[in-house]
Amino acid sequence: MSSSPKSRLSEDVLRQKESRYCSHGDTVHYSPAPKFFQGCDGSFLYDRQDQPFLDLQMWYSAVNFGYKNKTIIDAVKAQLDQLPQLACQYLHEEKVLAAEKLAEECARAFGQEGRVQFNVGGAQAIEDSMKLVRNATGKSLFMAFMGGYHGRTLGASEITSSYRYRRRYGHFSNRAHFLPFPYCYRCPYGKTPDSCNYYCVTQVERLFETEYNSFWDAKAEEPEFVALYAEPVQATGGYIVPPSEYFRRVKKILDERKILLVDDEIQMGFFRTGKFWTMEHFGVSPSIVVFGKAMTNGLNPLSGIWAEESLISPQHFPPGSTHSTFSANPLGTAAAWATLQWIDQQQYERRVAEAGAYFLAGLKQLKKRHETIGDVDGLGLALRIEVTHPDRITPNRTLTDRIFEAGLAGALPSSRGPMGLVLDIGGYYKNVFTLAPSLEITKDEIDLGLELLDYLFTSCAEVA
Amino acid sequence: MSSSPKSRLSEDVLRQKESRYCSHGDTVHYSPAPKFFQGCDGSFLYDRQDQPFLDLQMWYSAVNFGYKNKTIIDAVKAQLDQLPQLACQYLHEEKVLAAEKLAEECARAFGQEGRVQFNVGGAQAIEDSMKLVRNATGKSLFMAFMGGYHGRTLGASEITSSYRYRRRYGHFSNRAHFLPFPYCYRCPYGKTPDSCNYYCVTQVERLFETEYNSFWDAKAEEPEFVALYAEPVQATGGYIVPPSEYFRRVKKILDERKILLVDDEIQMGFFRTGKFWTMEHFGVSPSIVVFGKAMTNGLNPLSGIWAEESLISPQHFPPGSTHSTFSANPLGTAAAWATLQWIDQQQYERRVAEAGAYFLAGLKQLKKRHETIGDVDGLGLALRIEVTHPDRITPNRTLTDRIFEAGLAGALPSSRGPMGLVLDIGGYYKNVFTLAPSLEITKDEIDLGLELLDYLFTSCAEVA
Amino acid sequence: MSSSPKSRLSEDVLRQKESRYCSHGDTVHYSPAPKFFQGCDGSFLYDRQDQPFLDLQMWYSAVNFGYKNKTIIDAVKAQLDQLPQLACQYLHEEKVLAAEKLAEECARAFGQEGRVQFNVGGAQAIEDSMKLVRNATGKSLFMAFMGGYHGRTLGASEITSSYRYRRRYGHFSNRAHFLPFPYCYRCPYGKTPDSCNYYCVTQVERLFETEYNSFWDAKAEEPEFVALYAEPVQATGGYIVPPSEYFRRVKKILDERKILLVDDEIQMGFFRTGKFWTMEHFGVSPSIVVFGKAMTNGLNPLSGIWAEESLISPQHFPPGSTHSTFSANPLGTAAAWATLQWIDQQQYERRVAEAGAYFLAGLKQLKKRHETIGDVDGLGLALRIEVTHPDRITPNRTLTDRIFEAGLAGALPSSRGPMGLVLDIGGYYKNVFTLAPSLEITKDEIDLGLELLDYLFTSCAEVA
Amino acid sequence: MSSSPKSRLSEDVLRQKESRYCSHGDTVHYSPAPKFFQGCDGSFLYDRQDQPFLDLQMWYSAVNFGYKNKTIIDAVKAQLDQLPQLACQYLHEEKVLAAEKLAEECARAFGQEGRVQFNVGGAQAIEDSMKLVRNATGKSLFMAFMGGYHGRTLGASEITSSYRYRRRYGHFSNRAHFLPFPYCYRCPYGKTPDSCNYYCVTQVERLFETEYNSFWDAKAEEPEFVALYAEPVQATGGYIVPPSEYFRRVKKILDERKILLVDDEIQMGFFRTGKFWTMEHFGVSPSIVVFGKAMTNGLNPLSGIWAEESLISPQHFPPGSTHSTFSANPLGTAAAWATLQWIDQQQYERRVAEAGAYFLAGLKQLKKRHETIGDVDGLGLALRIEVTHPDRITPNRTLTDRIFEAGLAGALPSSRGPMGLVLDIGGYYKNVFTLAPSLEITKDEIDLGLELLDYLFTSCAEVA
Repeated sequence: MSSSPKSRLSEDVLRQKESRYCSHGDTVHYSPAPKFFQGCDGSFLYDRQDQPFLDLQMWYSAVNFGYKNKTIIDAVKAQLDQLPQLACQYLHEEKVLAAEKLAEECARAFGQEGRVQFNVGGAQAIEDSMKLVRNATGKSLFMAFMGGYHGRTLGASEITSSYRYRRRYGHFSNRAHFLPFPYCYRCPYGKTPDSCNYYCVTQVERLFETEYNSFWDAKAEEPEFVALYAEPVQATGGYIVPPSEYFRRVKKILDERKILLVDDEIQMGFFRTGKFWTMEHFGVSPSIVVFGKAMTNGLNPLSGIWAEESLISPQHFPPGSTHSTFSANPLGTAAAWATLQWIDQQQYERRVAEAGAYFLAGLKQLKKRHETIGDVDGLGLALRIEVTHPDRITPNRTLTDRIFEAGLAGALPSSRGPMGLVLDIGGYYKNVFTLAPSLEITKDEIDLGLELLDYLFTSCAEVA
Repeated sequence: MSSSPKSRLSEDVLRQKESRYCSHGDTVHYSPAPKFFQGCDGSFLYDRQDQPFLDLQMWYSAVNFGYKNKTIIDAVKAQLDQLPQLACQYLHEEKVLAAEKLAEECARAFGQEGRVQFNVGGAQAIEDSMKLVRNATGKSLFMAFMGGYHGRTLGASEITSSYRYRRRYGHFSNRAHFLPFPYCYRCPYGKTPDSCNYYCVTQVERLFETEYNSFWDAKAEEPEFVALYAEPVQATGGYIVPPSEYFRRVKKILDERKILLVDDEIQMGFFRTGKFWTMEHFGVSPSIVVFGKAMTNGLNPLSGIWAEESLISPQHFPPGSTHSTFSANPLGTAAAWATLQWIDQQQYERRVAEAGAYFLAGLKQLKKRHETIGDVDGLGLALRIEVTHPDRITPNRTLTDRIFEAGLAGALPSSRGPMGLVLDIGGYYKNVFTLAPSLEITKDEIDLGLELLDYLFTSCAEVA
Repeated sequence: MSSSPKSRLSEDVLRQKESRYCSHGDTVHYSPAPKFFQGCDGSFLYDRQDQPFLDLQMWYSAVNFGYKNKTIIDAVKAQLDQLPQLACQYLHEEKVLAAEKLAEECARAFGQEGRVQFNVGGAQAIEDSMKLVRNATGKSLFMAFMGGYHGRTLGASEITSSYRYRRRYGHFSNRAHFLPFPYCYRCPYGKTPDSCNYYCVTQVERLFETEYNSFWDAKAEEPEFVALYAEPVQATGGYIVPPSEYFRRVKKILDERKILLVDDEIQMGFFRTGKFWTMEHFGVSPSIVVFGKAMTNGLNPLSGIWAEESLISPQHFPPGSTHSTFSANPLGTAAAWATLQWIDQQQYERRVAEAGAYFLAGLKQLKKRHETIGDVDGLGLALRIEVTHPDRITPNRTLTDRIFEAGLAGALPSSRGPMGLVLDIGGYYKNVFTLAPSLEITKDEIDLGLELLDYLFTSCAEVA
Repeated sequence: MSSSPKSRLSEDVLRQKESRYCSHGDTVHYSPAPKFFQGCDGSFLYDRQDQPFLDLQMWYSAVNFGYKNKTIIDAVKAQLDQLPQLACQYLHEEKVLAAEKLAEECARAFGQEGRVQFNVGGAQAIEDSMKLVRNATGKSLFMAFMGGYHGRTLGASEITSSYRYRRRYGHFSNRAHFLPFPYCYRCPYGKTPDSCNYYCVTQVERLFETEYNSFWDAKAEEPEFVALYAEPVQATGGYIVPPSEYFRRVKKILDERKILLVDDEIQMGFFRTGKFWTMEHFGVSPSIVVFGKAMTNGLNPLSGIWAEESLISPQHFPPGSTHSTFSANPLGTAAAWATLQWIDQQQYERRVAEAGAYFLAGLKQLKKRHETIGDVDGLGLALRIEVTHPDRITPNRTLTDRIFEAGLAGALPSSRGPMGLVLDIGGYYKNVFTLAPSLEITKDEIDLGLELLDYLFTSCAEVA
């Protein structure tokens, strides 16, 4: 499956070098013993001993269409032979075609004409979206959600909820106002969905009731915060699916208060939840859509935004408004164009719904068997397992970490032989497994995943 | 040389789509008729009619080692077959090896141990460097140079001189203090190099003389601005080479005033000027080095920073201090590692010096023949032609644009047949051709470039 | 009572001049026909026809001890004869004595040693308090309350809730996070006091629960917002008295989260509510107390702060940390010292409680008679009448304005002859009469006030 | 002359109290032994032993018209008997008359109609001026001068040059760009007035030459910094008089670049230099004038701004745009109105010029006799003595402090018997005596001042 190792250096030597020359400032060293991998294929990663690891997280949903998806890989190779490099001030075909396709998907989904601006890295696309909003409104204060994540540039950190990401870096003069996300399993208002009548939306409405509530100048009819950044399903926050009416009701308030909705689809776009854009589930039309990750199936950092014409027309966002050297790099656009064509040929709306339902049913069974699972939920193939103490509510970070590390240690007994399991931890309390399997995952592989999870919840709990 | 066209759509159709679906907010539409290209090789781009264009700018110095450099292309293809995708919280070999090599080059050049943090896009690496400085000092006001360019994220825009890049986007609360760059051809102080005795440095020194000069608290011995961002040779500003003692003298002041030097090598690193790092020409040791572009020879947006240990040690910059999904993406690290190995096998220090000297000699001849060339200069293969009126000082933007567009229109008569010429315009007055040819450029190709420039300066001047 | 008019210019002429030469940017022109006054005495103002106006607002509680209080006036006259002017870098006796007395009152009330820093104008004292907090924490983000008011300098506007006060003035980089104030008559959470169990405090607590709630770095145990500014009874917000346990419970959270409490007593200090400091009612000890207004009984803009020693000791707040030319102007300190001595000789704790109870009882009767009074409440002689529609909840701004203007128009029939009534309007909906009568008001004058209010609520309602 | 002491507490006891209860954060403790005073009259202060001190600084120019100027004192007493207190939302005669007079003086001097907005404390008036500029431009970045001083609120500190005033207080997001002031004795460019041809102005012009100089968007024709704050004669900076053409030439640039000129007359207004407004000497018309200090002859912190109609009309600066409780307090307006009438009855334009010339002639003699005086200069009765080492250029802060303290110690031998001398120290190097004597100072008193200075320069130098 995986090719033979090409490395001549031992893992020990590499670890010594890594320890000496690599910054530990990224997320590698969240793990006490970071894992080396050397191969990948389909739903599996392979370590330096060629041991397979079932990956239920697929690079934070960047590889939605399977590792080494041949169609997309081949397109990149073709571009390497054709036009691997080109300055972004010149045009090439794949850029135009990918932009057209993305604009069409937005027009279809949201009923608005608009344009696409590429960049590299999700955070830089977020920055471009902030530029659009600032340009349109002259203001730079935005709302976002508690639990939300939009990137780690200084600008993106201002609308990303965790104060930990800002604390080291001095003053942030556009720090967002963060609204509680409708996280019904742990309702921030202590309500329950059956009787709350969207109390959380009422609380948003209240903010604008009088000028003394601090957000609205009633005389001038102007808001102080001019955009709301939202992940349609909260990602790093723990794959939290909002109740069905939430965004529709909030959007009504935003419209009344002249606040733009920016839809961050970086992690949830490209059929992760069974729609091209996850916001489509909720029936609202954002003014700006931000995307990245799976657009190239992880083969290039290409990212981008779509915005409605009134924000991004050449008149409002003229030449020179933004730029980056690699913004439409041809290897990226080739990968994106191949990915978009690939998507078009699948029937992901149906297939993801089916696979997601199958997986969620399995997770519900798992929950019944393990009292340390407080909640399972999901939309399409964005699924969550909340690890708790036996009261099924108190977060159990210790057990979460133990399962994560055991999965990564590999050598788990399975019906397919020794195996590892790649998970990722999210959630406000760092106790949620956020599952983002390949959209090409098979039923067998889902069964294998459930088998491994069952084993881990059992064996790790026993250790406790 | 270039492969046959693969496209089935006419350029007209593509232009219509581009006009409708692509944001014009990037730099494409600086040109009234943006150019489509479909192939590249060595020092040449090929348009959709397969007409060759000699490229003297090489994607703003991102493709230092030639289009389709086979060694590096092959490394990317191998990674596509081996490990094209891997979440950045896991480790892989090329990341470690590339980091080691870069850290060694910094240690060799600057005499300091340190570490490397990868990211994608130059601006995001700049943002990481800003995080390091803010983390170390608790402050967020920086100095930078008039004419300097460090990127277009909101954060990078604060230290990039042009107000045009900020104007649309409201308030910037960390707007840098911009020092005049030692642009001796147009000395900001009206001095001449033979008699100025580094008056410009004296003016920097003066800023800290008393607390009333606004930059220094003499009682606390603390500066208000805590870092100076510098391109060792100013890039977008017009490939301006500072006088030899400038940085050494300024660095002395910075050290006395506890101000960190951040060396932005994004455009000038990787032997553009004949040294691995251009700052090596000037004999000073920065605390942070920022790099990107040519590190992958344009095959991946991988960028990064190196910082001295006291700033970036795990203690000072612990896990989670920064992050981006694609920060050490394996296709990027494979391209970088191949590029770094490629560099090691060439003798660029000698070869770039020689080729640069040859090219500059030719430019000096060109200047003699054309009174509309006010200045030519260069360091290694970073060369400049300043286009002026016949007084050899008044900027001539009209002629500059005309030559640029004529080169891009192609069909120039040349000893090699009909040919185009790819240039880029920089400079404070947008009247400088900033030449960044392939480091693999041959003498014949240099001669061809000079021939085409000669033709253009003649023919376009006549039109005037 | 009032002296004879000294003016030789007619009111018409003065109005013309005012219309031409005076900025309308202050609050004078909130009224369509601003009122001229020319005399004052005890609880009464006199217009240019010598008609008396019972003043139930006493210059927003700046003249607590009666207009032309002879003792304090005489002290100012004595200072005019002794030392009317002295640069604040020199010392004079009254400054020291007033500081001592204020520090003693804080030590008595809050059990902490500390020091006093004078300034002029409440907002400048607020700015000094912000300096103390920023100096102690290195951070500049603060919390404050919706409905709160702390002044109109740019800095004070950042912690004053109304966006209307910021909208015209561009970006504010330290805009506060505003918490809902416990305004139980209109509970922001739709709760009722009998069953809420301080739900509002629970909501404050929740903000710090995880780093994803955006306010707390759990690893570093550091808050992002480092102080809470609070008026103990909300003033401009509508003389809202919080429930008795509110501040005690919130303070517990603040202590756990390392957030300083700043007590803004500018309007409520100096026995307005029957205690020297209104915060004394609530049993919590702030780190900083800000005061002004009634400290000189309205005879000088002198203001100031007291802070606990750990914040304001010479070591932490050394010479030169702040300054203003008039910060301890001798006419101001003389007025303050006389006022503080005056207070000492009265028995305001008992007298204000009694007068307040008597007045509030009258207001409750008034409410029974007028269905347009939704709520009356008070603490000491800070009293409120909330004007509503007959449902006793919907704000009735029209009627409020009509009563206000009718009172100011004068010529109201009363048992003492034709009379005016001076009221002030506050509240989130601008429908609250915030009553701040002289602490020297007699029962007869309270009866007169109630009589006039009764007449106005009747006559103005009829007009509707 | 001075009245008998009224105090019953010894100075020792007062010092103990001061040490314990007073913040040392103001400027009192710049002096190791702060001086107590208890009386004042004309040009003299009196200490607690009734020893006279000739005051050559008059409370930083707040008491231009002599201590206890009877006319003005009597006006305040009359207001104490008539209308000592009145909420600023109501009108009274003196406010209107003072506003009219000030607006007339601005119209006369600057040829523009406009309006006056009062406030208290110079810094709050500066804040009001910042509001006007921010309101008119939507921007909040301003230019100001190195050496400039505009107050100590957080906002005013952003345009006040000394970093020492900001360092303790975290991030300032509108930190000004500070231009070098034309301080010809110590030219920031090392030029001399006879040959410089206003090189300093050329340097200002250069800032806007291209967008890369960082201040100007040439496409949009918009500046990034929208106002220049200037003291016409730099006050705290050391009573520096700019060359005659400076402001006229700079104003031309400001007009071209759409930058407003704000004239800070807080210390130099009201005939300190022999004109009502000091900017009148320089023939330019500011858009905003800020004033305070001497407007009430030090009897009340009343301050204010005048602005041209296009900035401050009711349409542009409508009701509620600013406010402070004491903004037009009747004791302040009575003092101001009396002061303005007093001024009208004097012939200060002639008298100040004459007295200033006489004093300056004496200082020039003094300079001849003392090699430790590097420079003397003045405009009207704003005079400077720069204390240096015998090279007449190296600042001599030690000697400056020694003379200051010896003057304050009193008991200096003089032709009028034992005497003290009150000076103030300014200047970038804290080596300048900034002389601001009473405008009512007699020739005899000037002679006495010169005599005392002569004695001090002699005796203190000998100690060295």
